[in-house]
Amino acid sequence: MKKTILLTALVLNGLTLFAQSNDEKNIKLFYKKALTEAKCYTWLEYLSNDIGSRLSGSKGAEQAVEYTKRQLETLGLDKVYLQEVMVPHWVRGEKETAYILDGKTKTVVPICALGASVATPKGGITAEVVEVKSIDELRSLGDKVKGKIVFFNRPMNPENVGTFDSYSEAGDQRRIGAKEAGQLGAVGAIVRSLNLRLDDFPHAGNQSYGDLSKDKYVPGAAISTNGAELLSKSLKANPTLKFYFKQSCETLPDVLSHNVIGELTGTVTPENIMVVGGHLDSWDLADGSHDDGAGVVQSMEVVRILKNLNYKPKNTIRVVLFMNEENGGKGGAKYEEVAKQKNENHIFALESDSGGFTPRGFSLEADDANLKKIQGFAPLFEPYFVNTFVKGHSGSDIDHITSKTIVKAGLMPDSQRYFDYHHAANDKFDAINKRELELGAATMTSLVYLIDQTGIILPTAN
Amino acid sequence: MKKTILLTALVLNGLTLFAQSNDEKNIKLFYKKALTEAKCYTWLEYLSNDIGSRLSGSKGAEQAVEYTKRQLETLGLDKVYLQEVMVPHWVRGEKETAYILDGKTKTVVPICALGASVATPKGGITAEVVEVKSIDELRSLGDKVKGKIVFFNRPMNPENVGTFDSYSEAGDQRRIGAKEAGQLGAVGAIVRSLNLRLDDFPHAGNQSYGDLSKDKYVPGAAISTNGAELLSKSLKANPTLKFYFKQSCETLPDVLSHNVIGELTGTVTPENIMVVGGHLDSWDLADGSHDDGAGVVQSMEVVRILKNLNYKPKNTIRVVLFMNEENGGKGGAKYEEVAKQKNENHIFALESDSGGFTPRGFSLEADDANLKKIQGFAPLFEPYFVNTFVKGHSGSDIDHITSKTIVKAGLMPDSQRYFDYHHAANDKFDAINKRELELGAATMTSLVYLIDQTGIILPTAN
Repeated sequence: MKKTILLTALVLNGLTLFAQSNDEKNIKLFYKKALTEAKCYTWLEYLSNDIGSRLSGSKGAEQAVEYTKRQLETLGLDKVYLQEVMVPHWVRGEKETAYILDGKTKTVVPICALGASVATPKGGITAEVVEVKSIDELRSLGDKVKGKIVFFNRPMNPENVGTFDSYSEAGDQRRIGAKEAGQLGAVGAIVRSLNLRLDDFPHAGNQSYGDLSKDKYVPGAAISTNGAELLSKSLKANPTLKFYFKQSCETLPDVLSHNVIGELTGTVTPENIMVVGGHLDSWDLADGSHDDGAGVVQSMEVVRILKNLNYKPKNTIRVVLFMNEENGGKGGAKYEEVAKQKNENHIFALESDSGGFTPRGFSLEADDANLKKIQGFAPLFEPYFVNTFVKGHSGSDIDHITSKTIVKAGLMPDSQRYFDYHHAANDKFDAINKRELELGAATMTSLVYLIDQTGIILPTAN
Repeated sequence: MKKTILLTALVLNGLTLFAQSNDEKNIKLFYKKALTEAKCYTWLEYLSNDIGSRLSGSKGAEQAVEYTKRQLETLGLDKVYLQEVMVPHWVRGEKETAYILDGKTKTVVPICALGASVATPKGGITAEVVEVKSIDELRSLGDKVKGKIVFFNRPMNPENVGTFDSYSEAGDQRRIGAKEAGQLGAVGAIVRSLNLRLDDFPHAGNQSYGDLSKDKYVPGAAISTNGAELLSKSLKANPTLKFYFKQSCETLPDVLSHNVIGELTGTVTPENIMVVGGHLDSWDLADGSHDDGAGVVQSMEVVRILKNLNYKPKNTIRVVLFMNEENGGKGGAKYEEVAKQKNENHIFALESDSGGFTPRGFSLEADDANLKKIQGFAPLFEPYFVNTFVKGHSGSDIDHITSKTIVKAGLMPDSQRYFDYHHAANDKFDAINKRELELGAATMTSLVYLIDQTGIILPTAN
């Protein structure tokens, strides 16, 4: 297979105007603007402190749609519009309660219902506990868990330097723990929070019952890491202790919501679309400042900076603020559905959904030729300590986009602190550092600019 | 000038046992041990939460000497000892007060006396204010500042990605602002805190009156960045408003204190010494968890990991916890004085004094040959996202060491958050992320190991 660069003669002419030295100058300008006059921090302050949590179907989610649309409208883009999408509407209900019941001693522990979980009976559930470290271990127990609560207690592995690796490795417990427990006749599932730190925050997140028959659905909840340690220790001392928990969450009918979209129309090949985005919805326990308020405002900042510099993109640059990444992915799916209907051609998509921390690089979904091409940009990013250009997952929302040849990228911020906050009540505005957020926006702007200038490499049949 | 590698035949034999693949494995082990069993976070918790602030001459400083010595003694090193050093003893006295006096309106603003400053008269100082952006601007005003308070208000430059650059550029206002103001007959100096963020924390730090005659000493204080913004705005509206401040700090006679030193004696060339260190003292407004509790416990962790692995260093590895970096540098100077007396040969020194944030690389003081050599280690650090090996300042304490041929390095952590906390009341344990701290310790251990294994390149006369 030969590779050719997707360029018209006109674009080639354009390229000569944007030699390496100009790229250097322009990227320097993007960083300067981000660090001195960005709006992303102020936008995030509003999203977090004035609107707050934004779970799909909530008032906060709809306020976020209206607010970000209004803000995009102030930027002088070529188009700003909403895209309708039906989204799940799960509500937590009353605050959950849980305790370890050891003889007559009750020790309260912090839990939260997992997304899409069913409620416990009104009086709660009290049962003995079976601790397991994995789905496989649970399956090997078979009938032995009948009537009991399954306690999934495999910690995130601290040895991985990239914490998302540890998240991936431990995530099955949360995603399908309750399903697997229900399948075997257990009465509930308690899952150790996906947090590398020992603290008292239970971390929410979605679960799925998959194709399990509804009569086997059992409630699933996350317990704080300190709570998990205590429960495990207590079980070693007394294997027949009981655990009590009560939650009143429920799934209501789907509701209408929206993706928010803004566009700078391409001046050379407007039919080629480049997406930059994050997701508007958050979990309900906090403001979702890192997940993913940061990605939303950084994506808005990309188009603000470009427009403010009067940059005329060759391709259409589209900022997309997706709804419902957390518990359904309906926003991403709808975006792709409409793109398919319109026969749109996406050449590039960039998502920021890993927190608003100091940017380290990009995780790239690209064939070898485009990977190599983007890795060739590395020297341009070195002055900003952005050094990592690796193959890897880009983002859950842009996962849906299926254009024939597309390069996808995920902003890779420093990942050490992310799971201290992820889906928990402390993911709030005070956990955001203004400069780290702004540097992320500048890094994203720079890659969008470079891809817009140089295109992507198309495979050609040989 | 030709270069040769400082190696005996025996060391060369040793080298064959430590081929690249072994280096990879060993470094992986250092990171694993740091992330799974390090003691640095627990040590720092004690230093910060049980001992607290540690300004030279304070009770906290002496408790820190005792505590770290005791902890080093548990590690099974070949030697642990104290090194006596006389240090300055400046005390803040009562909490400072300050307000803007605009007509009859008093607006309180947060200030703190700068280290080595004199007190105001007991009743405080009230005077008109002259705002300047630089020492040069002050000097150009000459007599016009007589009887007035000079307000230095040049912000740290947000455009630099490395925040230490901005610190260097703005630092003269704090270091010599009061001296320059006093020289011209002003009655006091108020300096904008060296903080990139707008908040309400005044940031301490040392100043010097240099060779100014004592009768010209005037008090110097830092004002929070929000306070500086308010004062500047108020002055625009009313240039003849007055400013009041009162502080009761004083310099007491020097007191005896100590550097804390531990050693793993070299097994091949014990006469060649490698230092790894940080400074024990902190400013008095908070616990100094980042500055420099982090560097202290990371340095201790380096020798803990090596000893725990039963590593037999070729050279002598010495952990040095310096006293009095903040307001005198007497610990570093004493260390060098004793080293000179003993005719010691230092080949390498590494300091961690830039906060306990995610490590990004090293700032190196080395000739071109050694710089290139260390940059050659970069691939070994890539799995840990440690990418930056640049020429630059290493550390204030190891600045003093003057062995004939020595390579010096400073750990370079991510610098975005450092000046949010630096010398201010919020530099506390809760601003530390356990994993970031541990990764720094592993990164330091890896470089110490590589230099111990491969030596440094000595210049040879040609």
